[in-house]
Amino acid sequence: MPINALVWGENVHEQMDENVRALYPDGMHGAIAAALAEDANIRPSTAVLQDHEHGLTEVRLAATDVLLWWGHRAHGEVSDEVVERVQRRVWEGMGLIVLHSGHYSKIFKRLMGTPCSLKWREAGERERVWVINRSHPIACGLGEHVEIPNTEMYGEPFAVPEPLETVFVSWYEGGEVFRSGLTYQRGAGRIFYFSPGHETYPIYHHKEVQQILRNAVNWAHNPAPAWTAITNAPNVPIDQAREPLVQKGPRLHADGEEGFG
Amino acid sequence: MPINALVWGENVHEQMDENVRALYPDGMHGAIAAALAEDANIRPSTAVLQDHEHGLTEVRLAATDVLLWWGHRAHGEVSDEVVERVQRRVWEGMGLIVLHSGHYSKIFKRLMGTPCSLKWREAGERERVWVINRSHPIACGLGEHVEIPNTEMYGEPFAVPEPLETVFVSWYEGGEVFRSGLTYQRGAGRIFYFSPGHETYPIYHHKEVQQILRNAVNWAHNPAPAWTAITNAPNVPIDQAREPLVQKGPRLHADGEEGFG
Amino acid sequence: MPINALVWGENVHEQMDENVRALYPDGMHGAIAAALAEDANIRPSTAVLQDHEHGLTEVRLAATDVLLWWGHRAHGEVSDEVVERVQRRVWEGMGLIVLHSGHYSKIFKRLMGTPCSLKWREAGERERVWVINRSHPIACGLGEHVEIPNTEMYGEPFAVPEPLETVFVSWYEGGEVFRSGLTYQRGAGRIFYFSPGHETYPIYHHKEVQQILRNAVNWAHNPAPAWTAITNAPNVPIDQAREPLVQKGPRLHADGEEGFG
Amino acid sequence: MPINALVWGENVHEQMDENVRALYPDGMHGAIAAALAEDANIRPSTAVLQDHEHGLTEVRLAATDVLLWWGHRAHGEVSDEVVERVQRRVWEGMGLIVLHSGHYSKIFKRLMGTPCSLKWREAGERERVWVINRSHPIACGLGEHVEIPNTEMYGEPFAVPEPLETVFVSWYEGGEVFRSGLTYQRGAGRIFYFSPGHETYPIYHHKEVQQILRNAVNWAHNPAPAWTAITNAPNVPIDQAREPLVQKGPRLHADGEEGFG
Repeated sequence: MPINALVWGENVHEQMDENVRALYPDGMHGAIAAALAEDANIRPSTAVLQDHEHGLTEVRLAATDVLLWWGHRAHGEVSDEVVERVQRRVWEGMGLIVLHSGHYSKIFKRLMGTPCSLKWREAGERERVWVINRSHPIACGLGEHVEIPNTEMYGEPFAVPEPLETVFVSWYEGGEVFRSGLTYQRGAGRIFYFSPGHETYPIYHHKEVQQILRNAVNWAHNPAPAWTAITNAPNVPIDQAREPLVQKGPRLHADGEEGFG
Repeated sequence: MPINALVWGENVHEQMDENVRALYPDGMHGAIAAALAEDANIRPSTAVLQDHEHGLTEVRLAATDVLLWWGHRAHGEVSDEVVERVQRRVWEGMGLIVLHSGHYSKIFKRLMGTPCSLKWREAGERERVWVINRSHPIACGLGEHVEIPNTEMYGEPFAVPEPLETVFVSWYEGGEVFRSGLTYQRGAGRIFYFSPGHETYPIYHHKEVQQILRNAVNWAHNPAPAWTAITNAPNVPIDQAREPLVQKGPRLHADGEEGFG
Repeated sequence: MPINALVWGENVHEQMDENVRALYPDGMHGAIAAALAEDANIRPSTAVLQDHEHGLTEVRLAATDVLLWWGHRAHGEVSDEVVERVQRRVWEGMGLIVLHSGHYSKIFKRLMGTPCSLKWREAGERERVWVINRSHPIACGLGEHVEIPNTEMYGEPFAVPEPLETVFVSWYEGGEVFRSGLTYQRGAGRIFYFSPGHETYPIYHHKEVQQILRNAVNWAHNPAPAWTAITNAPNVPIDQAREPLVQKGPRLHADGEEGFG
Repeated sequence: MPINALVWGENVHEQMDENVRALYPDGMHGAIAAALAEDANIRPSTAVLQDHEHGLTEVRLAATDVLLWWGHRAHGEVSDEVVERVQRRVWEGMGLIVLHSGHYSKIFKRLMGTPCSLKWREAGERERVWVINRSHPIACGLGEHVEIPNTEMYGEPFAVPEPLETVFVSWYEGGEVFRSGLTYQRGAGRIFYFSPGHETYPIYHHKEVQQILRNAVNWAHNPAPAWTAITNAPNVPIDQAREPLVQKGPRLHADGEEGFG
């Protein structure tokens, strides 16, 4: 069964900036979706900020296996309700791939619990993405590094939690470094952050970047049934305890009463 | 210099429930602060939900090295503004010790990025807290386990991220287990979650539990200066790059322009 | 392409102890291999201590995707040369599943770098294996716990490094707990330790334990090409540096000289 | 009480290479010990490969809180017996700081369980050590990076397990990156690997590098009593179980019999 990958694009720079539109006539989300479509195992679609409910309705999310997120100048315009909905789906098992300036998106900050801040410089300098673990599924088919001729520099310190795995670390012409590929898990959902992808350069047309995105979709897909009960905090009644128990001492809750929370 | 430890208590059950009041005439926060005061290196104080700004003003938090948090039925009454303030101080380096039902507090859920849900049963059963790493500073002075005669069961799955360290795992009479002592880091702040502490039992009068709390305060204290810039995302101008750079390709931002974020 | 899973059995208790032989007439390795064969995606085979080179020749290991290891009383009889060979294959990407008393095998201790010690009791008591993350591939198809009627108790502290993921934690009738399912990565190889499996009980005939083993083989399989160069420490000559460099200062090594190590 | 820090030096290059001797007339170990002595809380001493038992007798190690290790061309001359002794002391709680080419020492490879290989180039190029978490105790007093004018390049992939924390990441003039400061825990012992320190450059005379070494000694010191029982695998007899138990089913071991292992 193919993986349903939904590419979410902010779709603002493409409308406002001629350089960006020239590079991405179908939007950055369009270019990413086209790259994903080269993998027969992935069924990509797109949604944008301007869609009804940003294109992220309950129904649409329920049918999504992996969500890719690109946003930059309009993070604040994404509704909190939709962000909560996306977060819940990640907990249930939907994969999430956060791209470039998405480091500052509401959804990434919520899932990390940290500021997700970094340094930046828009000089079109050279970036060399070093592969830390060449046998990681996300690095499949790559050489020892990926060279990006023109990039926006993202520099450490990157205020995120210690990752599960550091997949890529980037070198910049101007003298900085950045942990450019990091994995996390939140609930049943796998999360991959990948930093290359500034809107004024043709980075999503780069063959190896496209390979990384396809790899990441395959990696982030969790085939387990959605863990919809993950937000429940069930009471286990005494008579259903696995070992015989008798009530001891005072209680706050009467039988069958709901917990707080 | 002593560590300024602020014990925050919801202070609701103590007012409403005779059993709780009998156990904790000075409030649970009062009992915890008294236990901390036995360590000459700790200077404890208390604050409660009912205080102005919940007792967590900017000034008070700035002077706090480690915050302990106990809440249960009134999580929803804690103002979002105060929660954001606490979260920012954790990022800057304030230690945070989350106790028992605090697993469902706004501040813990925000810092974890997960539901923080669990199973529970209020049967007064026996809990045996096993020490996983006896040389961890938080386990200092303990034997191989701590026995709690009457407890509320908290059972797995506990929907939190993989911890930095698993310090304690609990066994319950009724047949469940729980990762009862977990450490995390968010920004410069160290976080310790410790599950024992139900309000209807005298758990904070337990000598070894008190020792764990004192140990945790010492462990969570980060003596580094507050990392107040952690939420900034500074631009590094081309002429201040560490290596000589010339501008290449198009730019989105004009010189000196702020980033989005 | 099916996964080549090699089940390695010490095959000593089966020869010496009538109870064990009665439970496992084809050896424990035989029972495990039969359980794996129920997954059409797995092609199991077996090898035992008594085979030439313990059945773990270079050729055999090169053709193995995932190795399962059960040993107990004869750890010391496994040749160091074979252990080094297995370790190298794990680094290259072969998955390794270490079972029960294999916690004290040479190969597991070498890969962990710790004593791998634990507490134990052979009382035939009840064990309840709790699933920590029900959406982990190794937990696929399980309920919230697996009940093992008679087991050898393995108790904390288990002297292993902090795992990548805690998949299972066990409760014991006698009052102990144990982190019974842990994942690690060493080089390109994925490692899963699973504690149930004492030789005097029919644990490998348990349906859910068999499911866990099949799941673990699928999880541990790394389809990436073997990372055979992982033990190399290549010199990068100055004229092959990615950025233009000129030699500065004194050198220890002449051009083209090998490193130490 | 001051921290007993033992600086172990291979002391071979200093004897063979005039450049190294000129830089380090008292040996590299001597220079490092002198740098540590600037911290009133540290009591440094030295030992070298050529000493009886390499200066690492049982008595000496028992009195050592933190061991620093620099070796390069003579890794193979370190006796396995001494390496096992050091490993055991790390498990018991002795801190270990592994420096530069020590990445290939027997002790580091044993504790990591991986090849610990990397790329290298001896060109005297510039290295910029970026601080990933400025509030980590090992980064205390540093700015946002440390600049090393002439260094040996160490490049990724560095074949080590995922660390507990990534403290430093290095940028190199020739285009590579390296995770230059990593922390681990093995048993009760804290481990810090720090890559700068090539023998032909005055890196251990660098003020900020010296600060990092002092910080690391303070960080690695575990004041808990030595966990000497960590290598034991004790049987817990049925009549000493925490919960009442009766023997069920067959047993392999008779009462009071030792385990295997």
